[in-house]
Amino acid sequence: MGVSEPTPVDLVRTTDGVAGCPRRLVMEHVTSRWGTLVLIALLDRSYRFGELRRAIGQVSEKMLTQTLQTLERDGLVHRDAKPVIPPRVDYSLTDLGREAAEQVRGIAQWVDRRMTAIQHAREEYDAAKE
Amino acid sequence: MGVSEPTPVDLVRTTDGVAGCPRRLVMEHVTSRWGTLVLIALLDRSYRFGELRRAIGQVSEKMLTQTLQTLERDGLVHRDAKPVIPPRVDYSLTDLGREAAEQVRGIAQWVDRRMTAIQHAREEYDAAKE
Repeated sequence: MGVSEPTPVDLVRTTDGVAGCPRRLVMEHVTSRWGTLVLIALLDRSYRFGELRRAIGQVSEKMLTQTLQTLERDGLVHRDAKPVIPPRVDYSLTDLGREAAEQVRGIAQWVDRRMTAIQHAREEYDAAKE
Repeated sequence: MGVSEPTPVDLVRTTDGVAGCPRRLVMEHVTSRWGTLVLIALLDRSYRFGELRRAIGQVSEKMLTQTLQTLERDGLVHRDAKPVIPPRVDYSLTDLGREAAEQVRGIAQWVDRRMTAIQHAREEYDAAKE
């Protein structure tokens, strides 16, 4: 394989140290616990903040705010603050965000489909260790 | 939507508390920093431990061991210890692991394709905040 041709591992390997790799950070944003849930929820439709929080459940206001800001900064979520009283803020996916959300939903659905096989593998592993 | 029909969010939402949700844990294993790199590397071919460590780079022996054990327990990685001297251990993907690895590679490749657009979005976001 030539020097200029990236190997599969190069695709996600750090180029400037693990913590600082920008691609790794995006991967972490979209696959984070709350990032995943936000992206998948917004695939359906746009949500207001409180509504999104109820849909996801268990997430604190602070964590959801931070998650949305991170995804907005990455260009994945669009924040639409309407100049009305009381203030109304809607969150939706950008085109880029829709692509990310579909990838993430793909993994989530795969896990869901395969969970029984994975649980079975774990039981076998644990039994063999005993 | 009926009570028994899962919404997209239900697919990844916790059923027994965030930390304990088995599906969330699998998601974390396959999208973790080292989990991602191991799965993608093994899509190519099987690797011996030291070889895999060099291919990934920067990972400590302890972290790689732990990552491989987690993926083996989930039924994604097969560990083949050959009874030879010196000992030889090969790691490869199971059929289940190949499916997981393809999902993960899909996200990694998406991030790679879209990194410029994401960087651009960040610059715009930061400029607007100033």
